[in-house]
Amino acid sequence: MKKVILIPDSFKGSLSSEEICKIMKSTVIKHFSDCEVVEIPVADGGEGSVDCFLAALGGERINLNVTGPFFNKVGAFYGLLADGKTAVIEMAVCAGLPMVGEDKNPLITTTYGVGELIAHAANNGVKRIILGLGGSCTNDAGTGAAAALGTRFYDDRNCEFIPVGGTIKKIKRIDNSDMLPLLKDIEIVVMCDVDNPMYGERGAAYIFAPQKGADDSMIRELDEGLINVAEIIKKDLSMDVANIKGGGAAGGMGSGMVAFLNAALCMGIDVVLDTVDFENIALDADLIFTGEGKIDSQSLRGKVVAGVARRAKPLGVPVVAVVGCICDGIENIYDLGVSAVFSINQRPTSLDEAILHGKSNMDKTMDNIIRFIKAMEA
Amino acid sequence: MKKVILIPDSFKGSLSSEEICKIMKSTVIKHFSDCEVVEIPVADGGEGSVDCFLAALGGERINLNVTGPFFNKVGAFYGLLADGKTAVIEMAVCAGLPMVGEDKNPLITTTYGVGELIAHAANNGVKRIILGLGGSCTNDAGTGAAAALGTRFYDDRNCEFIPVGGTIKKIKRIDNSDMLPLLKDIEIVVMCDVDNPMYGERGAAYIFAPQKGADDSMIRELDEGLINVAEIIKKDLSMDVANIKGGGAAGGMGSGMVAFLNAALCMGIDVVLDTVDFENIALDADLIFTGEGKIDSQSLRGKVVAGVARRAKPLGVPVVAVVGCICDGIENIYDLGVSAVFSINQRPTSLDEAILHGKSNMDKTMDNIIRFIKAMEA
Repeated sequence: MKKVILIPDSFKGSLSSEEICKIMKSTVIKHFSDCEVVEIPVADGGEGSVDCFLAALGGERINLNVTGPFFNKVGAFYGLLADGKTAVIEMAVCAGLPMVGEDKNPLITTTYGVGELIAHAANNGVKRIILGLGGSCTNDAGTGAAAALGTRFYDDRNCEFIPVGGTIKKIKRIDNSDMLPLLKDIEIVVMCDVDNPMYGERGAAYIFAPQKGADDSMIRELDEGLINVAEIIKKDLSMDVANIKGGGAAGGMGSGMVAFLNAALCMGIDVVLDTVDFENIALDADLIFTGEGKIDSQSLRGKVVAGVARRAKPLGVPVVAVVGCICDGIENIYDLGVSAVFSINQRPTSLDEAILHGKSNMDKTMDNIIRFIKAMEA
Repeated sequence: MKKVILIPDSFKGSLSSEEICKIMKSTVIKHFSDCEVVEIPVADGGEGSVDCFLAALGGERINLNVTGPFFNKVGAFYGLLADGKTAVIEMAVCAGLPMVGEDKNPLITTTYGVGELIAHAANNGVKRIILGLGGSCTNDAGTGAAAALGTRFYDDRNCEFIPVGGTIKKIKRIDNSDMLPLLKDIEIVVMCDVDNPMYGERGAAYIFAPQKGADDSMIRELDEGLINVAEIIKKDLSMDVANIKGGGAAGGMGSGMVAFLNAALCMGIDVVLDTVDFENIALDADLIFTGEGKIDSQSLRGKVVAGVARRAKPLGVPVVAVVGCICDGIENIYDLGVSAVFSINQRPTSLDEAILHGKSNMDKTMDNIIRFIKAMEA
């Protein structure tokens, strides 16, 4: 083997994608010391996404203070990739659920700081902003972020205000004409792996607000607010964002970013693959290793392994998935372009035990696969 | 791939070696329809060993009535391999533990029928007899079998008798001069995967008699009997069989077969490999699949996977082990000549669950490995 691409998702609760890359690389190099190994730890849009992109493509963290979830000041950062033209923002750094601790309350939290990060990146001269929506504590439909960038929200007395989850139902008019002009020439790509719509029983409030601290009456209030935002967007911005797949991500921020910033909602893995110029780097590879904590029938629709396989298949490069758990009904994965799926489980064991031994099991499994490749090449 | 050898051990309690061969073959043929597949289900000397050899090499079952464990008549059989020169006998068909049901009693059971099977095979013109000692209900040191073949046992009044577990302590003299003459020209090979000596705390009585129904006082009685047999063998046959590794197999029958029949005690896997002419059939193979239910540090000393690997290594043919359970500390297996070890576990699960899904897990795992080989060849 002369060239191998490593592009694994994290194993939630057990191994980060960067740790997996590190283990995979060391086993490849152990047996094929001259092999070129390209590491692409996969970002999922949540915490750690910036570091994943920086690890794969180089660049730097830009540190700055922005507005936190309670309109407090917080230290935050985004990633400026080595090309100088791409910024990566994870909203979790200034509107993340861990930041509110016990005080979870999607009625009062804001995404304002996310808008400030976007503005800073835009002023830094980037041409493309990747925005990860994972792990938010908010339900403001991205109105806070938009307000930070120039969108104006008015109530029934025509007073301008910065909406939060509990006040988005009061929005009567939206004026987007003062949006930061720089953004016109910047592509905004949102990493978004859920397909929930903005509101309704599969929408942001009903599905995601409970984990952000909402009780039943709060859920109904938030859902009514999201319905209102969709209506006003339709009236004033002439866009229908109610049923966009993924519009419900991050408390309706998916739809908000489409409406206010003309963003595109994309599968996270496709954003990663586009950003690393996957087709170009993979074309002359002998093998691609990918993986997920659990591979199931869901994985066949757009998660990391399937996303990688779909784009590797036309290149004719074999894809091997190394996973924690192989569920039933995944036989179609082979048709998608995965050559083989190996579980890292060494023996019958509990899930807790498996997670505990994730690192050594990954190491043993990779070592074994690479030995096998070497034996078959000989 | 043009030629593959399948030589798996059974997965105890889950899959027979013949079932595993069948699954392995179907997955190979599914992806490499022109591939020559050689199936060698591995016999372990216990129940089913005759059928394993017949499956691997052809031949027929020879049915006959012989003496059962309680000196009753029972229907039994042995295998006459297609070459006409080799017989395979599993002692379990006439002295097997399941045959005595609730009436387990190693004081009174006999191996006499095993001797009758050996005599019949000898009279059938074979030049080699493979004797499997697994699953016995006896503790007579093989004296019953020897008596059936002409060995004479005398008590302190110089009366000839056929010893059983409870009377081997009464043997005062052994006369082997009337042993069936045909046996002089027949090689007798005993399949024996335990290394316990004839008597003592690691001997036949202390280790194996409890599962044959012995209580503490019975164990002591049996052990004293075995000590006596060893002493009389030393006195009258000038052989020291007390410390032979495996002499304690089948209630001391290992040592008895060495003393009375000049048999060789061999690792079961080596007997199988010799009998199928392994080096000759494997030399031009592209790959060898083997396996065991559980691979552990014990497996490194002589069990199936290690046995296959040790003899495949000089041929330069890669060996892949497909196993139920990979224990810690098996890294040396690679040095022995195993190229790769894959567990059939698809996900974290209990042992019971794993055993229940053995067949489908084996099928999925083999399918995956073969797909991987195909992808790497392309």
